[in-house]
Amino acid sequence: MSSNSKTGQGLPPDVRMRGFASRTSVTAALRWIDSAAEQLDSESVPLTAATGRVLSAAIASRVDVPAFDRSMMDGYALQAAAVQGASPYHRLRLKVVGQSLPGRPFRGAVAWGEAVQIATGAPVPAGADAILPAELAEPCDFSSSPSDPAVATTARPAPGDHLPGAIWALGDVAQGKHLGLVGEDIHHGDPLLAAGRVLRPQDVGLVASIGRQSVDVVRRPRVQLVITGSELAPVGMPAERFQIYDANGPMLQALAERDGGEVLPWRLAGDDQAPLRSALAGPADVVLVSGGSSVGPEDEAPRVLAECGELSIHGVAMRPSSPSGMGRVAERLVFLLPGNPVSCLSAYDFFAGRAIRLLGGRSAQWPYRAVVLPLARKLVSELGRVDYCRVRVVDGVVEPLAVGGAAVLSSTTRADGFVIVPEASEGFPAGATVEVLLYDR
Amino acid sequence: MSSNSKTGQGLPPDVRMRGFASRTSVTAALRWIDSAAEQLDSESVPLTAATGRVLSAAIASRVDVPAFDRSMMDGYALQAAAVQGASPYHRLRLKVVGQSLPGRPFRGAVAWGEAVQIATGAPVPAGADAILPAELAEPCDFSSSPSDPAVATTARPAPGDHLPGAIWALGDVAQGKHLGLVGEDIHHGDPLLAAGRVLRPQDVGLVASIGRQSVDVVRRPRVQLVITGSELAPVGMPAERFQIYDANGPMLQALAERDGGEVLPWRLAGDDQAPLRSALAGPADVVLVSGGSSVGPEDEAPRVLAECGELSIHGVAMRPSSPSGMGRVAERLVFLLPGNPVSCLSAYDFFAGRAIRLLGGRSAQWPYRAVVLPLARKLVSELGRVDYCRVRVVDGVVEPLAVGGAAVLSSTTRADGFVIVPEASEGFPAGATVEVLLYDR
Repeated sequence: MSSNSKTGQGLPPDVRMRGFASRTSVTAALRWIDSAAEQLDSESVPLTAATGRVLSAAIASRVDVPAFDRSMMDGYALQAAAVQGASPYHRLRLKVVGQSLPGRPFRGAVAWGEAVQIATGAPVPAGADAILPAELAEPCDFSSSPSDPAVATTARPAPGDHLPGAIWALGDVAQGKHLGLVGEDIHHGDPLLAAGRVLRPQDVGLVASIGRQSVDVVRRPRVQLVITGSELAPVGMPAERFQIYDANGPMLQALAERDGGEVLPWRLAGDDQAPLRSALAGPADVVLVSGGSSVGPEDEAPRVLAECGELSIHGVAMRPSSPSGMGRVAERLVFLLPGNPVSCLSAYDFFAGRAIRLLGGRSAQWPYRAVVLPLARKLVSELGRVDYCRVRVVDGVVEPLAVGGAAVLSSTTRADGFVIVPEASEGFPAGATVEVLLYDR
Repeated sequence: MSSNSKTGQGLPPDVRMRGFASRTSVTAALRWIDSAAEQLDSESVPLTAATGRVLSAAIASRVDVPAFDRSMMDGYALQAAAVQGASPYHRLRLKVVGQSLPGRPFRGAVAWGEAVQIATGAPVPAGADAILPAELAEPCDFSSSPSDPAVATTARPAPGDHLPGAIWALGDVAQGKHLGLVGEDIHHGDPLLAAGRVLRPQDVGLVASIGRQSVDVVRRPRVQLVITGSELAPVGMPAERFQIYDANGPMLQALAERDGGEVLPWRLAGDDQAPLRSALAGPADVVLVSGGSSVGPEDEAPRVLAECGELSIHGVAMRPSSPSGMGRVAERLVFLLPGNPVSCLSAYDFFAGRAIRLLGGRSAQWPYRAVVLPLARKLVSELGRVDYCRVRVVDGVVEPLAVGGAAVLSSTTRADGFVIVPEASEGFPAGATVEVLLYDR
């Protein structure tokens, strides 16, 4: 149940202050979360499930990648000195003594005047100190004379069956050229990735390249939903005349998963206290209670939380989501979210989502992209409270949405994002630039 | 195997053109993808798995939400005319005839001078045309006289056991005030969400609120990985002396999943053609082949693709990733990605990722956030080819990374993102502003 401070204007203070005796500032609520939400312990996950997870410890390499000198070109491994001065008009002949392919190296050594055909990525044989690119070589019969440059074939030298007995070098190459040396990508002992890193696809590739098949990441916070309200019908069931379908459960599940949470199985709690009491004593790291979060006699959640643990904050100076609460039972963080779906979304995003991200080793920052754009018309807010204003962005201009009721969830699906008006602000005039947090990534 | 056009400088054209006879422009390759990648058919998924999926058909509502007039406040449902002129100093008494709670409505009607205690979200009883907020009401004994405003209690009116027999109205209220009318959130027939919408958490909530438990979304493209190369050792297995661990498989799996693909089971293909041939005839919508994508005799993939279907593009004017190819077998799109991991990443991101997103009904745009920032030093590129340059962003300035080898995957984990230098550009001078695509969201 919610309380609306506006309706008390002009009344004596004792009457106006019914409902929440006082409200905590958003800033103080965030401070509470930041001190309460400590990063969870770690777990090992296979690389194939590691992308997007948060490293719990730095990774260093115990190997060199590559572990051997390799060719960066298709061509011929040789001693650079042997082809010094070669050109299309001054061809130099080399004897091809073998072939090195990826995973199938040439086991001998390359002497002066010899060459080993080599593929990109293949090990460089002993004795060779450069790669002559295939483009600068032309196969020849070992005993034949130089062919006419004008009729040089466009066919590439062919490993395997097609290994020529000899080649003409059509150019020279500097010592060390086109070699990928041991440890070129990763040196033994290199710090690869720092603790706290949110793993990218290429990070996973990099970790794979040092031969690891799992990594230690921060455990995903386990989230228990407790969706209260005797008026709620579960989706898919026929609703009675005065029932409404629950929107908050599916929405909170999606939000918690977005923030890295693992949502435990849940179902509608109705007006029964047992699911809440059970959740407060259960295995979850975070309990999200939807509905019954205010100060009315039917608002059970705050009382039950205070009884089982600690109701640290109840009532926040913001709109919507004012009848929000938070606290804990032992290490378990509990968020009391209003039943009205817009209030529920906003309270989740301001408070619960931040806690879930922090527990999971992630950033406290909003998980939304911010853009700074001018306002189409003024945005009015009340001094002393934070406002969550849904807006559309049309042709680069921010238009506050007219419908702002906490029960009107479609206001958040028609909106492109929201503007937060701080406590100390009465809003912004038309034309002022504001920061919009965009719902879509 | 890759071919490097730089090494042919100063040679006769016939020699220089070994390797790829010609290269397709990136623009033409993207055009091919955009014409080849048609949105897949749809499937039904439960709401709990719908967030982030793409709607295949618009959703309209067949119901009103709410389906009944409801109270937006805790208070009393009454006829507004009955409290006209009420104030703390001119209290008006109303008889409380019952209670309406969410899901438990008052079944009678409210007459002039009567009130029904009502909770936020509860159905408004017949006869009532406004809600008097709880803050403007004070319980009283039906027979008692007005209490002294100075001693008004801060307790809220209590439903259930605590239903007062009567209240004093301490203020008046306009007709229609604090009522949430039928269809306030959603009207019967309202278009709720358009086809192509990537579902947000609140969209899922909204769809739940109309009683649906599933939605029709675009099917996820099935992606088959074929990781070729006899030198590759699978992660977790001891590697032999000249083997390297596969980085591309885990990386491509993560990339394809990021872009909405469903990656089918895969394992290293070695130098065996069978897994490739089987993938080209298999159930996948997209086949990603890593390695063997160039023009050398060991590069089997282009020949096998041409034999089984159509090798539409082979060789792209870009660096790295030049030895990339694409084509199709029936409706199945096939991407030949270079084995060098940076080339593989870049070719995936330029081409394969775009195709997977388009098949899945998503945007062709880069899945990276773009920022525009000045260059710390000049960035040189070659005219006629697109360059993929890894950069760091330090104090708001873009620093190109010195190490750019296509084999050095750590260049993409040390980088914050990349700059694309277009075909028609030779690069940018220091201080020029460039667009950086950031790897991290």
